[in-house]
Amino acid sequence: MKRIYLDHSAATPVDKEVLKAMNPYFKKDYGNASSIHYFGRTAGTAVEQARKIIAGKLNAETDEIIFTSGGTESNNLAVKGIAFEKKKGHIITSKIEHDCVLNACKWLETQGFEVTYLDVDKEGIVNIEQLKKSIKNSTILVSIMHANNETGVIQPIEEIGKICREREVLFHTDACQSFTKENIDVKKMNLDLVTINSHKIYGPKGAGALFIRRGVTLTPLLHGGGQEKKLRSGTINVSGIVGFRKAVEINHKLDYIKKLRDYLINRIEKEIPNVRLNGHRTKRLCNNVNFSFKFVEGESILMMLDKEKISVSTGSACSSDSLEPSHVLVSMGVPIALAHGSIRFSLGKDNTKEEIDYTIDKLKIIIKKLRDLSPLKEEDYAVHR
Amino acid sequence: MKRIYLDHSAATPVDKEVLKAMNPYFKKDYGNASSIHYFGRTAGTAVEQARKIIAGKLNAETDEIIFTSGGTESNNLAVKGIAFEKKKGHIITSKIEHDCVLNACKWLETQGFEVTYLDVDKEGIVNIEQLKKSIKNSTILVSIMHANNETGVIQPIEEIGKICREREVLFHTDACQSFTKENIDVKKMNLDLVTINSHKIYGPKGAGALFIRRGVTLTPLLHGGGQEKKLRSGTINVSGIVGFRKAVEINHKLDYIKKLRDYLINRIEKEIPNVRLNGHRTKRLCNNVNFSFKFVEGESILMMLDKEKISVSTGSACSSDSLEPSHVLVSMGVPIALAHGSIRFSLGKDNTKEEIDYTIDKLKIIIKKLRDLSPLKEEDYAVHR
Repeated sequence: MKRIYLDHSAATPVDKEVLKAMNPYFKKDYGNASSIHYFGRTAGTAVEQARKIIAGKLNAETDEIIFTSGGTESNNLAVKGIAFEKKKGHIITSKIEHDCVLNACKWLETQGFEVTYLDVDKEGIVNIEQLKKSIKNSTILVSIMHANNETGVIQPIEEIGKICREREVLFHTDACQSFTKENIDVKKMNLDLVTINSHKIYGPKGAGALFIRRGVTLTPLLHGGGQEKKLRSGTINVSGIVGFRKAVEINHKLDYIKKLRDYLINRIEKEIPNVRLNGHRTKRLCNNVNFSFKFVEGESILMMLDKEKISVSTGSACSSDSLEPSHVLVSMGVPIALAHGSIRFSLGKDNTKEEIDYTIDKLKIIIKKLRDLSPLKEEDYAVHR
Repeated sequence: MKRIYLDHSAATPVDKEVLKAMNPYFKKDYGNASSIHYFGRTAGTAVEQARKIIAGKLNAETDEIIFTSGGTESNNLAVKGIAFEKKKGHIITSKIEHDCVLNACKWLETQGFEVTYLDVDKEGIVNIEQLKKSIKNSTILVSIMHANNETGVIQPIEEIGKICREREVLFHTDACQSFTKENIDVKKMNLDLVTINSHKIYGPKGAGALFIRRGVTLTPLLHGGGQEKKLRSGTINVSGIVGFRKAVEINHKLDYIKKLRDYLINRIEKEIPNVRLNGHRTKRLCNNVNFSFKFVEGESILMMLDKEKISVSTGSACSSDSLEPSHVLVSMGVPIALAHGSIRFSLGKDNTKEEIDYTIDKLKIIIKKLRDLSPLKEEDYAVHR
């Protein structure tokens, strides 16, 4: 069996059609998209075509898409860009956001901004009543992710969008995990700012975008030559953006992946005792499986699966050096010991049923072996946050 | 004759060795460098090897290199990162910096910082006496570029580094244009922060780095998962960084390019009347030729050369949509009409003598044709800034 990759929420392979689309922009059409000669125009045309296709996927206007270096930059640009523009005020986000939104907000608190971090329920869904109560006159932005990167839980962003529009507050959503997996319609959903990126959807790393609704003004994080309507200066990563565009167009095999996901969930629940599926069972991304295994450490499972040539994660790749339990699971009320025993399997279009079968076979052996050696007891599972 | 590309200061082709080095990181070793499984470790190892090689090229320590999305981001991180960290103070830069340093400084002025913009002499070299006089107790940073992007003029950064070290002021240099062309030794030159990037040296767009001397603390622009020692969060662009590393290692043929440069300069000066070489004749990058042609518009020359399949620029690619004359040339005291008549030819390792000959032949015809039609008169050249 060749290596099995089940960490598509961290990064995907670059699809061969995507790489084929990118290749000319390395060796032949290598111009700077801001140059006005032939090479520049060729590069610029490719970027504008990409902008049009990516905008279309969100039901946005072409000029509402700003290219960035990825999700972290887009999220920082959205949150800090609005904050710098407004100079002061109150921001509402949730406790389960990706670190790039949370840490941007925490930094803004040191700069004089006020931030409310909304709770989520046991299934990982943001408390809408608390959101409604939290909006006040000084609220300048609500930033709630579309789908969580650890649990795949999908938030009711259409409902949140409606509330924000009624209350005349800007609404940003981090859609890095959901883009191309869930339908996103910026008009229907009343979205003002949307973060998307390339390397979660079989495009290259180093490319992302921010949808900015016409009329919404923000302060750039990167000042310079004035590219991207002066909102994001810097030489445009042409090959990256062309790859990003092509990644939007390939077949993402969503139904196929969903069937694999449900097969994996069902077999784990049937064949391994003392497990807990983290996150809402149906309001979740088609490719996300997140389980806590009682009496074992997630990291030990990860390392032993890795020895069997199976790659999974314990949560967000970004915080994988951290010994802290997942802030997402803790916010959902998962006991700390159980949060430490969690594994995320994130599936991709090229995974096969045979790979899933092989993974379950190995997982069963590993969980049994680790439990036989485990010092953890039932009472260790009483401690919540 | 195939298309002739003489705009390497805007962007270079990706070298075939570079692309070969990058390829595995798209399709096979596509892991997120922060993941701890096999795919993550493979990606992470490649990034750390790149860091070591790039650090070595600057005589820096490996842990002093932070990867970013490019020169604009690195320059913004250096300037704003120090400013945010110090909270207030005085910054010294020059009038001929790239827009990303200038516009970052201008924005910081709106945030309560004080900025001094140093003058340059007729040859484009920063006024060192003015620098010495400008440093005061509140000065938090000096940011002076190594080589100018329009004229290729090389600044005395070793001398500036010595002054800054003596006066205990941090010194940042934007070395995007000089990296791999000029020797940079961060220790000998007393550099605290150095910006470098990939797509000017035959690497891909979307990759850059900031050297940050050990002990220098700055506030990140991109908060998030804590990558790059918490100084630059975001999924690491593995293929981009691997390409950046390989680009440092290829043969840049500096002596060859310098001979082509001098040949081009000599022939233009001998064969076309009423021209002016902009910038210091010897303290300039090996690949930069910047001429003003009296009685013609640079843009007209550019368009007519483009029709002959020759790509050049009128200055920085970033500001190529602007109708303003070059701020660099104006700062050097070039009359505005002459600044409008400037063309930058920036040469690369794959240019040939035949291409240069062809370019000069076409250029002579074009200049003559444009001058025959020109309404510009001698007295139009009396207006300076």
